[in-house]
Amino acid sequence: MRQMNVAVVGATGAVGTKIIEKLIERKFPIKSLKLLASKRSAGSTIQINGEDYVVEETSETAFEGIDIAFFSAGGSITEHFAKHAIEAGALVIDNTSAFRMTEGVPLVVPEVNPDAIREHNGLIANPNCSTIQMVAALKGVKDQFGINRLIVSTYQAVSGAGADAIEELKQQSENFENRVDNKADILPSGSAEKHYPIAFNVLPQIDLFGEGDYTLEELKMMNETRKIFDDYEMSVAATCVRLPVVTGHSESVYIELDRDDVTVDQLKEAIRSVPNVVLQDDPSQQLYPMPLFAEGTDEVFVGRVRKDRDKKNGFHLWIVADNLIKGAALNSVQIAETYLEQQ
Amino acid sequence: MRQMNVAVVGATGAVGTKIIEKLIERKFPIKSLKLLASKRSAGSTIQINGEDYVVEETSETAFEGIDIAFFSAGGSITEHFAKHAIEAGALVIDNTSAFRMTEGVPLVVPEVNPDAIREHNGLIANPNCSTIQMVAALKGVKDQFGINRLIVSTYQAVSGAGADAIEELKQQSENFENRVDNKADILPSGSAEKHYPIAFNVLPQIDLFGEGDYTLEELKMMNETRKIFDDYEMSVAATCVRLPVVTGHSESVYIELDRDDVTVDQLKEAIRSVPNVVLQDDPSQQLYPMPLFAEGTDEVFVGRVRKDRDKKNGFHLWIVADNLIKGAALNSVQIAETYLEQQ
Repeated sequence: MRQMNVAVVGATGAVGTKIIEKLIERKFPIKSLKLLASKRSAGSTIQINGEDYVVEETSETAFEGIDIAFFSAGGSITEHFAKHAIEAGALVIDNTSAFRMTEGVPLVVPEVNPDAIREHNGLIANPNCSTIQMVAALKGVKDQFGINRLIVSTYQAVSGAGADAIEELKQQSENFENRVDNKADILPSGSAEKHYPIAFNVLPQIDLFGEGDYTLEELKMMNETRKIFDDYEMSVAATCVRLPVVTGHSESVYIELDRDDVTVDQLKEAIRSVPNVVLQDDPSQQLYPMPLFAEGTDEVFVGRVRKDRDKKNGFHLWIVADNLIKGAALNSVQIAETYLEQQ
Repeated sequence: MRQMNVAVVGATGAVGTKIIEKLIERKFPIKSLKLLASKRSAGSTIQINGEDYVVEETSETAFEGIDIAFFSAGGSITEHFAKHAIEAGALVIDNTSAFRMTEGVPLVVPEVNPDAIREHNGLIANPNCSTIQMVAALKGVKDQFGINRLIVSTYQAVSGAGADAIEELKQQSENFENRVDNKADILPSGSAEKHYPIAFNVLPQIDLFGEGDYTLEELKMMNETRKIFDDYEMSVAATCVRLPVVTGHSESVYIELDRDDVTVDQLKEAIRSVPNVVLQDDPSQQLYPMPLFAEGTDEVFVGRVRKDRDKKNGFHLWIVADNLIKGAALNSVQIAETYLEQQ
């Protein structure tokens, strides 16, 4: 296989670090590796496989000779630098929301819509973390039985809001007795005006508010799911909620199938048929997915599968995955792998 | 108003303590107050309004002369002792699930179905905490527009599982770094075989498993909601989840109305029309209900009201209340107050 010159933009961040980790672990064919970050991080070194890599500042000329550039440094960095990477001949795999809904930009979960990659124009977008695990878990069901309706309530971890949010949860958690007085600077969103404690609390706001009083996170899930499944007739509604969990997003999902003769066993079989999706569902053994135990894993876990008591085509599920790995870094690396396989 | 001889069974427990607090705070017409608990707690004293009350052991003969007996000491205690209280002439207000679904037993949320009280046969049941706040929040909407469908995902606090569960969360929360190794003895359910850490985790199991792989907590919400609304055509589905929150249950609720011409403003107006239900909904001010700030309050808070993007009669809401107060103690005391008013 052809060896690639790879760049990682945002190499020192929570997701960037994991992208490097996954590239090495999965033996991605790397000829050279360029680590890029903000001016602040430039000059620092990262050790990879015993070798020191110096972090360089992201610049318009940094992408010469690069074949694949992973972007994970915020939407504004992608908006500014991605075009320079593309002009230099690189394929950009972007983990931000900057171009996800842009026409002509494939939005890809390799287990779900690998063929969308072929239609890229220099940039492939990695979906939102909550979207990735949900569409992966539902891919088999959608293919076999059709899904025309989906209602999801999320239980999202703080690491999705970055390293500062993890530190905030850690600090606040030490203050159990006076938890209501905990100071907050980051969550629910760094760019929001007001901040609320996350420890021993639940925040029904992720990102800022948008159309119809849905949050941007909710709108992302609603729009991205339809784009990935290439099904704009499908009804998707989301309520996104942040919890005092470090890593691992959970989702309570209700679906309605096109068919009303599907059994729970058939549904489970369809879930299990998708690569990297693991069914963890045995009430007699109290077996179900939990974020604390999904942390650090590559898979999407599905459990609590139940038939709706009243709707013949209705089912309830519980979906959990590591939001930094399958929800971000791993999926980006898988996109690159799939791209290479398609050459 | 006639002064009442009152007994509290389970007087030293999390809910029993709050029942006493609410009786005093709300100036319930008490002639005498008898505090009952297990043998282990008997002999201890509780100070109320500067006066010491000695806790007595619950016994079959303890109810002589009692007018109203609040039970909050577990289903088996109610099953054993309630009939003796009723025989002694007391009205039993039971906070356990022992008789909630029994025919002839009113299941009451005073803001919703106060008239059901009149049909009691000596015992009135207090619904499950998650059910109470949901039906209170939806009462106005149900009356004005009809609700034929309801899907709820809960975000429940540990105090619903008792004082030991609170202590377990506290201990585990101190161990942020090695959170995956946290020892667990209580949650998800004291009577379950396996226990999992709750700190920095999410448990999609509350109570044991029952019919159709739903948990008993989920079945309670599904069955009790229909009984309280006296609407057995209504479709109700629940997924119940425990979180690292001390007190305050949250609920992500989707409803479908009988009418498809209702606006968000009309829905909000209907929510607000119910006593003790507070609309906290202003995205521009990041105003929405959160459990940390609901702790210690009497009200049911509703926010994040949104119209479904695809279903004309569909709406999404976020409902929060203190599970020990409105979800248990306060509702029991309100039942007693309403009963007295009806005499």
